[in-house]
Amino acid sequence: MLEILSEHRCFNGIQAYYRHDSEAIGLPMRFSVFHPPAERKEMVPVLFYLAGLTCTEETFMIKAGAQRYAAEHGIMLVSCDTSPRGTGIEGADKDWDFGHGAGFYLDATQAPWSRHFRMETYVTQELRRIIIDEFNVEESCMGIFGHSMGGHGALTLALRHPDKFCSVSAFAPIAAPVRAPWGQKAFGNYLGSDQAAWKEHDASELMKHRSTPFPKGILIDQGLGDKFLAEQLLPEEFEQACIEAKQPLTLRRHEGYDHGYYFIASFIEDHLKFHKENLRG
Amino acid sequence: MLEILSEHRCFNGIQAYYRHDSEAIGLPMRFSVFHPPAERKEMVPVLFYLAGLTCTEETFMIKAGAQRYAAEHGIMLVSCDTSPRGTGIEGADKDWDFGHGAGFYLDATQAPWSRHFRMETYVTQELRRIIIDEFNVEESCMGIFGHSMGGHGALTLALRHPDKFCSVSAFAPIAAPVRAPWGQKAFGNYLGSDQAAWKEHDASELMKHRSTPFPKGILIDQGLGDKFLAEQLLPEEFEQACIEAKQPLTLRRHEGYDHGYYFIASFIEDHLKFHKENLRG
Repeated sequence: MLEILSEHRCFNGIQAYYRHDSEAIGLPMRFSVFHPPAERKEMVPVLFYLAGLTCTEETFMIKAGAQRYAAEHGIMLVSCDTSPRGTGIEGADKDWDFGHGAGFYLDATQAPWSRHFRMETYVTQELRRIIIDEFNVEESCMGIFGHSMGGHGALTLALRHPDKFCSVSAFAPIAAPVRAPWGQKAFGNYLGSDQAAWKEHDASELMKHRSTPFPKGILIDQGLGDKFLAEQLLPEEFEQACIEAKQPLTLRRHEGYDHGYYFIASFIEDHLKFHKENLRG
Repeated sequence: MLEILSEHRCFNGIQAYYRHDSEAIGLPMRFSVFHPPAERKEMVPVLFYLAGLTCTEETFMIKAGAQRYAAEHGIMLVSCDTSPRGTGIEGADKDWDFGHGAGFYLDATQAPWSRHFRMETYVTQELRRIIIDEFNVEESCMGIFGHSMGGHGALTLALRHPDKFCSVSAFAPIAAPVRAPWGQKAFGNYLGSDQAAWKEHDASELMKHRSTPFPKGILIDQGLGDKFLAEQLLPEEFEQACIEAKQPLTLRRHEGYDHGYYFIASFIEDHLKFHKENLRG
């Protein structure tokens, strides 16, 4: 049962917010959908957006300015929350970079997190299925992108589920989390101490063992004024892995841009165009 | 002394936030500026945006998606807070539609509000002077627009200060506040019981006594799904006043759109184009 929380006309489409009882998570979850005007007449391609630490299902829809281009290109945008909420797990609200608001788009294997923190199953199975069943969308090929922790999510979910995603891009992704403090903290708690398990959720490690998984290329934008770049994001690790995997990558480094949504808004048009070409191609 | 709170690269310009000790208000005030890339090379025209009830100097810059067009057209965007903050006046935080966050862009004449609630002087004199003195802008002709309470502000300040503003537009303005509950509550408290004083801050009343004050026309967008339309906004009153004053008005009524920023974002491009033509013309 999908509950409509609100609907707003936007660029002649509809910006909608939904809530449902999630089986994968075991708690209510919220997500947002931008329905482009083309959906009223035809099946449209779907592009998932995964947000970063502390964000919600609203952040991208409010701040990125993506609806204009999604309306123009006839693409549905879907964004979800960044973790389960209200889990009651001790410590889940303590840190801004772990727990609530910081699900890292994986299924936790360690108690107490494994009970609800199952964002990979949520996004790739449950939410994807809801979108297909409820709306007028093309099922065959979906796109995924995201920012920071959500850029990590987009790259890893695309690499782990190539049958579901055929187009992927990212803004300032956590590109090598096993080497970054944010990733180490999250993976240690969610996945335990065995670093082999961590590598299964690290975009750079996953890419090394693939061969041209995305023949249409991957697009990444990174600001050079981003204070998290050197310690947390490490796009050069992913770049090197793409070379090894013969994966075409367009990694654009932008002088002066920081980690926030003013950066994302500045380049969102290019990402929508990139996905449109991949999804409609 | 202008304090820079933050600067963010955005569409090759700079989204900046400032704080200063305001003489007009008698308290610190914050405002935001989008510096278009053209400002690095030449004097650029200025467009003020006045936000609605409960908003701050951040709202428009985060939600409207205007920077893209301001960068393209070489226009500086300036937005301020919607009232003084931290006034310590009893009751100023009690209601969302009066007091803090609801300054109505006028100079209060009634105690205790008259001490700090002087937004008309703040915007038209102090803030305008700061923008001229500090940045690389054209002084001769500035534009002003806004939303809801800020649409009221834009229309009334433009009509009251035609020497300062030569281009005006609005989204869902409170177009006849003397006939609307929001306006009556605010004017009664800020201006007292004499309704002659109220009319000096009512766009429709002001317009009636002018003759084609804006020969280049006025642009207003209004959503027909706006729950405040019939009781609080009353654009038809302003429309009638424009007919009487021979003021060209483009009042666009949009099926289904509500009162929020998804509506504003959908039509912001047209407003930037409108002001560009007026300001550069």
